[in-house]
Amino acid sequence: MQKYGGTSVANIDRLKKVAERVVKTKQKGYNVVVVVSALGDTTDELVKKAHAITPNPPEREMDVLLATGEHVSISLLAMAIEALGQSAISFSGPQAGIVTDTAHTKAKIMDIRADRLVDELKEDKIVIVAGFQGESFEQNITTLGRGGSDLTAIALAAKLGAERCEIYTDVDGVYTTNPRVVKEARKIPVISYAEMLEMAATGAEVMQLRAVEYGRNYDVEIHVRSSFNEEEGTVIKGEDEMTEQPIISAVTFDTSQAKVTIQRVPDRPGIAASVFGSLAEANVNVDMILQNVSEKGFTDISFTVDENDLVKAKEVVQQVTDDLDAAGSSYDNGIASVSLVGAGMRTHPGVAARMFSTLAENKINIEMISTSPIKISCVIRRERMEDAVRALHQAFSLEKNPT
Amino acid sequence: MQKYGGTSVANIDRLKKVAERVVKTKQKGYNVVVVVSALGDTTDELVKKAHAITPNPPEREMDVLLATGEHVSISLLAMAIEALGQSAISFSGPQAGIVTDTAHTKAKIMDIRADRLVDELKEDKIVIVAGFQGESFEQNITTLGRGGSDLTAIALAAKLGAERCEIYTDVDGVYTTNPRVVKEARKIPVISYAEMLEMAATGAEVMQLRAVEYGRNYDVEIHVRSSFNEEEGTVIKGEDEMTEQPIISAVTFDTSQAKVTIQRVPDRPGIAASVFGSLAEANVNVDMILQNVSEKGFTDISFTVDENDLVKAKEVVQQVTDDLDAAGSSYDNGIASVSLVGAGMRTHPGVAARMFSTLAENKINIEMISTSPIKISCVIRRERMEDAVRALHQAFSLEKNPT
Repeated sequence: MQKYGGTSVANIDRLKKVAERVVKTKQKGYNVVVVVSALGDTTDELVKKAHAITPNPPEREMDVLLATGEHVSISLLAMAIEALGQSAISFSGPQAGIVTDTAHTKAKIMDIRADRLVDELKEDKIVIVAGFQGESFEQNITTLGRGGSDLTAIALAAKLGAERCEIYTDVDGVYTTNPRVVKEARKIPVISYAEMLEMAATGAEVMQLRAVEYGRNYDVEIHVRSSFNEEEGTVIKGEDEMTEQPIISAVTFDTSQAKVTIQRVPDRPGIAASVFGSLAEANVNVDMILQNVSEKGFTDISFTVDENDLVKAKEVVQQVTDDLDAAGSSYDNGIASVSLVGAGMRTHPGVAARMFSTLAENKINIEMISTSPIKISCVIRRERMEDAVRALHQAFSLEKNPT
Repeated sequence: MQKYGGTSVANIDRLKKVAERVVKTKQKGYNVVVVVSALGDTTDELVKKAHAITPNPPEREMDVLLATGEHVSISLLAMAIEALGQSAISFSGPQAGIVTDTAHTKAKIMDIRADRLVDELKEDKIVIVAGFQGESFEQNITTLGRGGSDLTAIALAAKLGAERCEIYTDVDGVYTTNPRVVKEARKIPVISYAEMLEMAATGAEVMQLRAVEYGRNYDVEIHVRSSFNEEEGTVIKGEDEMTEQPIISAVTFDTSQAKVTIQRVPDRPGIAASVFGSLAEANVNVDMILQNVSEKGFTDISFTVDENDLVKAKEVVQQVTDDLDAAGSSYDNGIASVSLVGAGMRTHPGVAARMFSTLAENKINIEMISTSPIKISCVIRRERMEDAVRALHQAFSLEKNPT
């Protein structure tokens, strides 16, 4: 199973290079299924067209429109492979048997009916499948949302029992942090699903959370590699299959959050439920939550939300502030979160302490903290984000190979 | 039933105009099914992309690629209609139940399973269908070839029992000849299927032969109209429904043919079968045929073929010339054919004589002649073509309304 993202097929020359790589894999004796995204920024251009017609295009029609992007790339890739003398056949999401629910623009895969793909693989053909799309029970075209093509590849790999699922992208693997921020960042050869999930959740952009989750649930070994070179990339797999775990694997960061604070809320049971219930109803995802006692009988509630949801969040908070008789609310989109991720921290106490002291030494103030068994996140000022990432990367010696 | 061609939806503004026209029709109380082509020259651009990859793209993949053009236009049109407050739903060819044979890039419609369309019409929705495409028995996407969108519209109109089928295009009807050649050319208000078929076969470009044939076979009243104005256009319908027939309806012309001559072929039975059998095997369509006795025991055979087939024709003719021991062969692509079409000529003798004398008066030499009950075609020099068209248009007073 190989998946190529939009930048890997941004133009005809790159598409031909992808065809060569696919053919080379086939010639090594593997059955090959290729999942491909839309060419370059096709999807963005289609969205622009729709918005030139109406600010709120119906989602069913949006999916019909967006799905054309991958139809173009699958057919062109099949042509390029055939031109190299290998037999290939393309399938749209519906043709490939990707059955989804009816949630247009963010559909979930419910079932995969891969009989046609299996038949064509038996015929020794290279099978090409449109990523990011499927067909609902109601026989409408659906799309799977952000990162949907990765999901298609991993789901098909699980269904077909593929030996591995190679995700080709424009970076050559998963790094200890973003090399644009820390030039000593090191490529991680192997990482566990759990760590990769935490990394994705705290801002690493290599793979979408959903796709990694699917891989973990069906135990699909994922190789993240560059389509521009032959490097090995990063393998994502189960923890139990890994011989050793570094204490800390990576430093991640996220600047897409904003902080909301509701001041002087009367401190009685059910307050939190009321605030966060209202936000959930309005479809606003809350990440970190902090509750302080400000003075006797009152509390301050702070939480972070995606910046894109801030307008929605403000409406809800305004209402809630009135209802609860709170003193007021404030908004802060000058924050960033910085996180340490590492499966080894479960068995190594003191990681949090070292993180906090490193930030303190660098005079970086911590505003909020959130932890999981394999992750610690701190909210800090956005302008100190890069300093924090560099300091932590160095403090935990991530540039050095742990073995 | 309304069908809009590529020029009618060449950009977002025109697409919005189409949406307005569709909504207006719906508001008059009609159920509306809209068939739409790809936006502007999308199809040509997709072909160009494919040819950038390989000179001979596999036809199955070509169909996957080309079908995306209409998927874009159906979804955008649905959005534009919804933006006007009407409920609309788009269907690809496969979703609309257009079942075809497996002849990729030139598939034939075998069946139409229109249940979904009927259901949505009952829901009072405007139904939008991608023209030019269908799904083969083998569940692959197919395209119907040149003029395929007209065919989709007429076939659906027949299946759904539509009151009429409006074909919106960039000209406002069928003319007595091309107005670019004869500025006095007159729009024909009503014309029979038979005449329209002869016109399409002899070079008129308004509608494809196949679509008109389907309309005749299923008795679908076709209105050819402009999408840029409100003019009535031309109605194409059965002869028996027409109150009167002008003697001559139109002058058509065709410059896409080339003439092939095989000289001094021994004149014995089976010669013609041998020549034209070989051409048919090579998939070369022959239009007119002329056989002359050149001297006792020998004959010259001339015929016309599509210029695009000339290379293939030359190969066949070379072989045949050798096999038959003919003196040689010559090729002439400086010809044009000029035709008179009119159902009335069946009952009015003398049309041919008048045509020949008109050409003679204008010193235009006739090289070949071909007739049907409602058509006379003459092959002449290409450089005299416009003169011939103008002279004939005037001689038969086509600029005047016959009623």
